[in-house]
Amino acid sequence: AVKLNGFPCKNPAWVQANDFSFSGLHNPGNTGNQFGSAATLVNVAQIPGLNTLGISMARIDYAPWGIVAPHYHPRATEILTVIEGSLEVGFVTSNPDNRLFSKILQKGDVFVFPVGLVHFQRNIGHMNAVAISGLSSQNPGVSTIANVVFGSKPEISTDILAKAFQIDKNIVQQIQWRF
Amino acid sequence: AVKLNGFPCKNPAWVQANDFSFSGLHNPGNTGNQFGSAATLVNVAQIPGLNTLGISMARIDYAPWGIVAPHYHPRATEILTVIEGSLEVGFVTSNPDNRLFSKILQKGDVFVFPVGLVHFQRNIGHMNAVAISGLSSQNPGVSTIANVVFGSKPEISTDILAKAFQIDKNIVQQIQWRF
Amino acid sequence: AVKLNGFPCKNPAWVQANDFSFSGLHNPGNTGNQFGSAATLVNVAQIPGLNTLGISMARIDYAPWGIVAPHYHPRATEILTVIEGSLEVGFVTSNPDNRLFSKILQKGDVFVFPVGLVHFQRNIGHMNAVAISGLSSQNPGVSTIANVVFGSKPEISTDILAKAFQIDKNIVQQIQWRF
Amino acid sequence: AVKLNGFPCKNPAWVQANDFSFSGLHNPGNTGNQFGSAATLVNVAQIPGLNTLGISMARIDYAPWGIVAPHYHPRATEILTVIEGSLEVGFVTSNPDNRLFSKILQKGDVFVFPVGLVHFQRNIGHMNAVAISGLSSQNPGVSTIANVVFGSKPEISTDILAKAFQIDKNIVQQIQWRF
Amino acid sequence: AVKLNGFPCKNPAWVQANDFSFSGLHNPGNTGNQFGSAATLVNVAQIPGLNTLGISMARIDYAPWGIVAPHYHPRATEILTVIEGSLEVGFVTSNPDNRLFSKILQKGDVFVFPVGLVHFQRNIGHMNAVAISGLSSQNPGVSTIANVVFGSKPEISTDILAKAFQIDKNIVQQIQWRF
Amino acid sequence: AVKLNGFPCKNPAWVQANDFSFSGLHNPGNTGNQFGSAATLVNVAQIPGLNTLGISMARIDYAPWGIVAPHYHPRATEILTVIEGSLEVGFVTSNPDNRLFSKILQKGDVFVFPVGLVHFQRNIGHMNAVAISGLSSQNPGVSTIANVVFGSKPEISTDILAKAFQIDKNIVQQIQWRF
Repeated sequence: AVKLNGFPCKNPAWVQANDFSFSGLHNPGNTGNQFGSAATLVNVAQIPGLNTLGISMARIDYAPWGIVAPHYHPRATEILTVIEGSLEVGFVTSNPDNRLFSKILQKGDVFVFPVGLVHFQRNIGHMNAVAISGLSSQNPGVSTIANVVFGSKPEISTDILAKAFQIDKNIVQQIQWRF
Repeated sequence: AVKLNGFPCKNPAWVQANDFSFSGLHNPGNTGNQFGSAATLVNVAQIPGLNTLGISMARIDYAPWGIVAPHYHPRATEILTVIEGSLEVGFVTSNPDNRLFSKILQKGDVFVFPVGLVHFQRNIGHMNAVAISGLSSQNPGVSTIANVVFGSKPEISTDILAKAFQIDKNIVQQIQWRF
Repeated sequence: AVKLNGFPCKNPAWVQANDFSFSGLHNPGNTGNQFGSAATLVNVAQIPGLNTLGISMARIDYAPWGIVAPHYHPRATEILTVIEGSLEVGFVTSNPDNRLFSKILQKGDVFVFPVGLVHFQRNIGHMNAVAISGLSSQNPGVSTIANVVFGSKPEISTDILAKAFQIDKNIVQQIQWRF
Repeated sequence: AVKLNGFPCKNPAWVQANDFSFSGLHNPGNTGNQFGSAATLVNVAQIPGLNTLGISMARIDYAPWGIVAPHYHPRATEILTVIEGSLEVGFVTSNPDNRLFSKILQKGDVFVFPVGLVHFQRNIGHMNAVAISGLSSQNPGVSTIANVVFGSKPEISTDILAKAFQIDKNIVQQIQWRF
Repeated sequence: AVKLNGFPCKNPAWVQANDFSFSGLHNPGNTGNQFGSAATLVNVAQIPGLNTLGISMARIDYAPWGIVAPHYHPRATEILTVIEGSLEVGFVTSNPDNRLFSKILQKGDVFVFPVGLVHFQRNIGHMNAVAISGLSSQNPGVSTIANVVFGSKPEISTDILAKAFQIDKNIVQQIQWRF
Repeated sequence: AVKLNGFPCKNPAWVQANDFSFSGLHNPGNTGNQFGSAATLVNVAQIPGLNTLGISMARIDYAPWGIVAPHYHPRATEILTVIEGSLEVGFVTSNPDNRLFSKILQKGDVFVFPVGLVHFQRNIGHMNAVAISGLSSQNPGVSTIANVVFGSKPEISTDILAKAFQIDKNIVQQIQWRF
């Protein structure tokens, strides 16, 4: 099978409407985890026909006070709208300013996370929250900071992380154990 | 004011979180028109911070049996998910095949309309329907076929349209009067 | 055979000058059809060496009063020059303006049809006319409005088209029968 | 006046059909020069509406045995068709192969000169020849080898050119005097 | 002054060779800081002529055991060569693998950090080390993880970071105080 | 083996750190040739992991008075820094100005050669010189003017070159014999 951008390239004669569709985005994700959130991704891995088309979608569910931990998309800007609940959202610009742009969003609010910048969300209410996002790539990629820095396989040397975050090595190791 | 891609380019020092946000996407659009549909666009015209970021969003409301008439986006692929109701959707490929890819979508279904191809939606139920779309441009553009072809200002010569659609000139004029 | 952008990618060692050439563009196309026009395309399907190079060419022949019906190229701007005869040409901008830019062209005149906008040409003289175009893609694509909207396979529901063009269903069907 | 890509960006409200057109490409260029050729360019400098649209056109006239000297376009592939006469054309690939792809073209033949590669044409007949080209940029640029290397202002050191072309300095100076 | 990509766009008539040059990259940076490293950047802020050209350069100095803390460039791949000393280098892929690719580099070794991925370097010797990098943007941007996540202005809520890294709030605050 | 941009595309599961590295850039190239220079390239041919990443590196060695003859990179801007010695460097703009931007560089100086423009370097000292360059493509390509114009396989007709450079055919042949 020929691959394009890492995904199979189907013979045009065999393409069907189903190659451009996906079902189930109305189903809540399972937020029973340490972050209290779940992302349901609808990108080229779910919809083959998205290949080369530069867009994808996601549904994010948040338990009360659940967070989507700081992360960035190497290849996509994200535009998010709140379907249910209230969210605190923010992104941080690159060096040297590292300015935090944040906002409390209510149902019907829309917010933009520019490509390649670290961002996060938190449900600030006692009810579940739901958001729908569009992303400007069929394969946006996600680098979650804690997983990348403290949970890589193999691990980054404890020494390096201790100096990078200016903390004791045993604190670094504590975090590494959790990721 | 300096413009970039036709939109103002704000001094970075004055940029605020509000430049990346929009409110009110939970409000239904007014579908009281001949098509029975309404699109609420959230692109660079509504969110200045979207400029150059290659993404936008839209909410589409459909009265029962309402349609979004055949149209295309010159600069964007659209990925749509049904929030409420049932939709018949489709797009048509370019010459020579002009193949129609169509599907009935239920709540939670997702469908893709590839960049530059004519597509449409119709509410096939007795209730209002609602969809949310992501589009792969901050300024996707919309060319609605009927408006472009029969409603341009000034009008395209009746002769040309009569020959193009192989119909009588008076039918062309009837359509032109309505657009 | 490996394909790139949907076309075969030849082993560089076997490439020859003929992979970059085509013959016969001085031959008039057959304009004996209902539109009175014929386009001879010279793109990546005719010249394999054009792949990835972002350009193609076309010759268009027009019988007296012949038209090239309203159409658009999803992936290319077109620049056209009149070799023989006189043409009425025009393109229509997207919503909400749907402004028609049109002009009468004489021999030696050049006109531009921006990427993704609906455009057309008509021979306004009693003699044959000829034009040469450059297009900004090796595979521009053509979506002819009448064929895409009224001649898709399978057909778009008559109901949808009747509402979209604000005409009776039997008129829709008349047009559909012709495409 | 705001500029985009180095060319003025007109207020959309003032744009007219003339911003997308040019006249006179049917007029032969003046080939009364040492090369026996003349290029009439139709790019963003002649048609303001071409800005950002990625295409331009040219007419080239050749006196008998006239040449378009070896040159390249830093930003465009060229597709050329012979309107009148016969041409010898060719392009040379980059290091290490420096392979010459050449061909004799007759009226109606089409040939491609890939972006950034040195190419040339020569009228091989006793009559004038004419070609029309499409180029994949609104501002292709032209670097004519003899002018760039031997005719720069100020001149490249004679020493450097003598070593580069493995010739005596006085031959370098002879060529420099002519450019 | 007109700006392009956020940097001044000089009138071509006034451009000089100095607009394409910079001096002093042979001078060691000052590594007397908590990380024991210093980066000297040569990008569009230092060389105006780099604007739009998609490349920049950097010199990095490392004191013995000095590190360049985990960071990423939102807009550039980096290719680095060791001029003096020995470096441990690595980058981490995005979710879900978060795989660390690392290597010990000696003088004359070259390593690539793909665009948008977190990476780091450490001098593993008792002598100073020096590296030269090329970056695939005239304005690569740098997001240093510790500064972005724990040193943003204003700060990200301690609650969010405590949950994100699965650590006590007082540890979060300790790190925040240092950035 | 699947190829991408003409180079093998490795299965991600088999990728290793070595796919992103190269050794030996501290070794001087052999400058014992008619130009007195040698370029050591580190691009996608040497580092498979560079594919699609838009950057490469080179080391250039110069014997006393050695030159890198006039050439251009069809697909890359070059940013060069002098590690040892003194260089005269320059580039020439395209028609009609053909302006030479040149400068004497000392150790630690940086200079930019914009994409697609002819440029050269000369060691102007009695010692060896060394430079490191970054290039904005994983496969920049090199077209050395003398080799392309006078050393192509097969050769460009002597007649054409004599007219192009306004010199006698026997001088053209002299140069052709040397390339």
